[in-house]
Amino acid sequence: MTSVITLLTDYGLEDGFVAACHGVIVGIAPEARIIDVGHLVPTGDVRRGAAILAQTTPYLPVGVHLAVVDPTACGAGRAVAVEAGGRVFVGPDNGVLSWAVQAVGGAEAAYEIANEELFLQPVSPTFHGRDVFAPVAAHLCAGRSPTDVGPPIPGNSLVLLPAPMCRIRDGAAEGEVLCVDRHGNVQLSITGGDVASLGVRAGDMLTVWLGRRQITVPFRDTFTAVPPGDLVAFTDSAGLVAMAINFGDAAERLGLPPGAHVRLSPVRQQA
Amino acid sequence: MTSVITLLTDYGLEDGFVAACHGVIVGIAPEARIIDVGHLVPTGDVRRGAAILAQTTPYLPVGVHLAVVDPTACGAGRAVAVEAGGRVFVGPDNGVLSWAVQAVGGAEAAYEIANEELFLQPVSPTFHGRDVFAPVAAHLCAGRSPTDVGPPIPGNSLVLLPAPMCRIRDGAAEGEVLCVDRHGNVQLSITGGDVASLGVRAGDMLTVWLGRRQITVPFRDTFTAVPPGDLVAFTDSAGLVAMAINFGDAAERLGLPPGAHVRLSPVRQQA
Amino acid sequence: MTSVITLLTDYGLEDGFVAACHGVIVGIAPEARIIDVGHLVPTGDVRRGAAILAQTTPYLPVGVHLAVVDPTACGAGRAVAVEAGGRVFVGPDNGVLSWAVQAVGGAEAAYEIANEELFLQPVSPTFHGRDVFAPVAAHLCAGRSPTDVGPPIPGNSLVLLPAPMCRIRDGAAEGEVLCVDRHGNVQLSITGGDVASLGVRAGDMLTVWLGRRQITVPFRDTFTAVPPGDLVAFTDSAGLVAMAINFGDAAERLGLPPGAHVRLSPVRQQA
Repeated sequence: MTSVITLLTDYGLEDGFVAACHGVIVGIAPEARIIDVGHLVPTGDVRRGAAILAQTTPYLPVGVHLAVVDPTACGAGRAVAVEAGGRVFVGPDNGVLSWAVQAVGGAEAAYEIANEELFLQPVSPTFHGRDVFAPVAAHLCAGRSPTDVGPPIPGNSLVLLPAPMCRIRDGAAEGEVLCVDRHGNVQLSITGGDVASLGVRAGDMLTVWLGRRQITVPFRDTFTAVPPGDLVAFTDSAGLVAMAINFGDAAERLGLPPGAHVRLSPVRQQA
Repeated sequence: MTSVITLLTDYGLEDGFVAACHGVIVGIAPEARIIDVGHLVPTGDVRRGAAILAQTTPYLPVGVHLAVVDPTACGAGRAVAVEAGGRVFVGPDNGVLSWAVQAVGGAEAAYEIANEELFLQPVSPTFHGRDVFAPVAAHLCAGRSPTDVGPPIPGNSLVLLPAPMCRIRDGAAEGEVLCVDRHGNVQLSITGGDVASLGVRAGDMLTVWLGRRQITVPFRDTFTAVPPGDLVAFTDSAGLVAMAINFGDAAERLGLPPGAHVRLSPVRQQA
Repeated sequence: MTSVITLLTDYGLEDGFVAACHGVIVGIAPEARIIDVGHLVPTGDVRRGAAILAQTTPYLPVGVHLAVVDPTACGAGRAVAVEAGGRVFVGPDNGVLSWAVQAVGGAEAAYEIANEELFLQPVSPTFHGRDVFAPVAAHLCAGRSPTDVGPPIPGNSLVLLPAPMCRIRDGAAEGEVLCVDRHGNVQLSITGGDVASLGVRAGDMLTVWLGRRQITVPFRDTFTAVPPGDLVAFTDSAGLVAMAINFGDAAERLGLPPGAHVRLSPVRQQA
């Protein structure tokens, strides 16, 4: 069986950082199939990394999932390997793994990465991706047991990234902007199920509060259900409500950065 | 024999969209060799996607060639698998496959993708790349017959992207800007054969009309045949006439976007 | 054993150029493991390409290392294959290979690539990466001997890129900005050993001259050893002194492009 290792970082593609990690992995696990989840996470943006990993993992083969997004670089915090859903997640214990671990059923076992025999020596203080994480992930991929990477730690001691705010109150769903994708689509922390619980169906209209601004947006199956240039809300491929402009950039038009607060409710009387 | 699957999209590299497609493919066809043709096609730019696919395909091993560039997302149109030149092209029937299909000899057979047993379930209305195209391509790569994806359709019912304008008239070649590459090189829809038919040889000078502007440009074997900073025309690696500036950006200097009209003729009396 | 081929170019990711090279390689060497070192080297920036290759190679498995960064495109100069450290480097003889060759012990043998039987025909004058370098590298990867690519040439006839300036003088280390990475970290041509030879230890302060400007910068083990927003110097993962701003962009704040002159010395009296 082919063993799969996936790789998510904020290293960018301009330098040789990603290639160095690939090289280290191939040197240790020559048969590994490497899938790049992405390397353009904004520098140190743990929440963005966590969201990408959580939304992609269900579509990745079972394997070793490495994520290195760490604003403290390597200066602080422990490195962990977490077993969940038949998979092993490897990365800094700063929450970047946490949403993906939850998405596949929660941590079954966890280990602090401490076995220096698995590391590249010397370990650079600033490139643990290459010297610690990649070799440990590769050894796991090549068949080493997670129990070999270091001492077991309680699953509930793992750093859990706060879930993005989302609540249903007074007949409205409140949440925040989780991600803005390449097309300018604005993904909210509100699920398709949340809006359904408000009685909203595809074809209805939504009232959307963006701070003090209030706009009316059609809720449809897909963003192409409205004329080009029109704003639309829909349940996206991750099951989350997104706002988009057909052939346009919704994030730019609405001025909505990640973290911005958004409130949705059904239009009381449809126009 | 290794089976090859190639992947061209407009998904960008910031998110996990491409990785999700890779993951789906590997899950179905673990032995497949995946080659990324590219993922930075401008959003929904079918012509750009078609040009990249057509110019790259002759250098790709025979395999399954998936291209997902679709401004209508998944809301409209059928999905198709097209057999041509021993290859199978998979994508939306919007023309993105058409130039590549023509480049390898034209459609020998075509099928509408309709067999939902091959899809991921549930199918997201907005991510057919992950839920429809990637799994179908992977099944084809793993050995399923194209006849399994759905009913046969007439090859002449496939959407054919209009060929870029190119004609020889009054001793001149008229065409349009097809692509601008990373280096600012301006690729025209005029072939090296077209200018040769006007009697132009490497070493000659060309008169180039850009709208009402008229400039004189040397035609050479390669863009480095002129001093740095100088404009030059040459037959590029796809067999098309391109204009470049040695160590410079021709598209920027000339103000030539894709689609712009260009007319070339030999200089009547060489200076 | 899996044979490895690595690929560094300035082709960018917008077009199908990299995929064409991959396709050619897979066609010739179907079992090859391809590792992309990177494709975003600034157009024709031989020094940047040389630095990335030299800093990444020690972490790449032994294999065939192809680097195509060539401002003369294919119009001038010879193509070479260089044996060094059990590896084979392939590229234009313009220095892009030279720092990596030195990093693994220097050239043991060198050959001018001249055997047209190994090329794709016809050879495009402007895309030797696809038509000359990729097929030659693939043949080497598939088991052909370097002696098959063309006549042997003296190792000392290879173009050697001038090493970046670095000297110790008057109790200071003088060097230049070698690279600026994605995070805005400024990598100097001064090694950690150079500053150690001045008696500088982690925890000390450095006086840094940037032209006529003089600033004081803490020298630490890693960039996270200072508060967010503070400037810091440290020995980076390539063993070179770098200046960074924790959670910031040092290159932008300091106005330091590649090539800029920098001089470092210990602060005489620590504040």
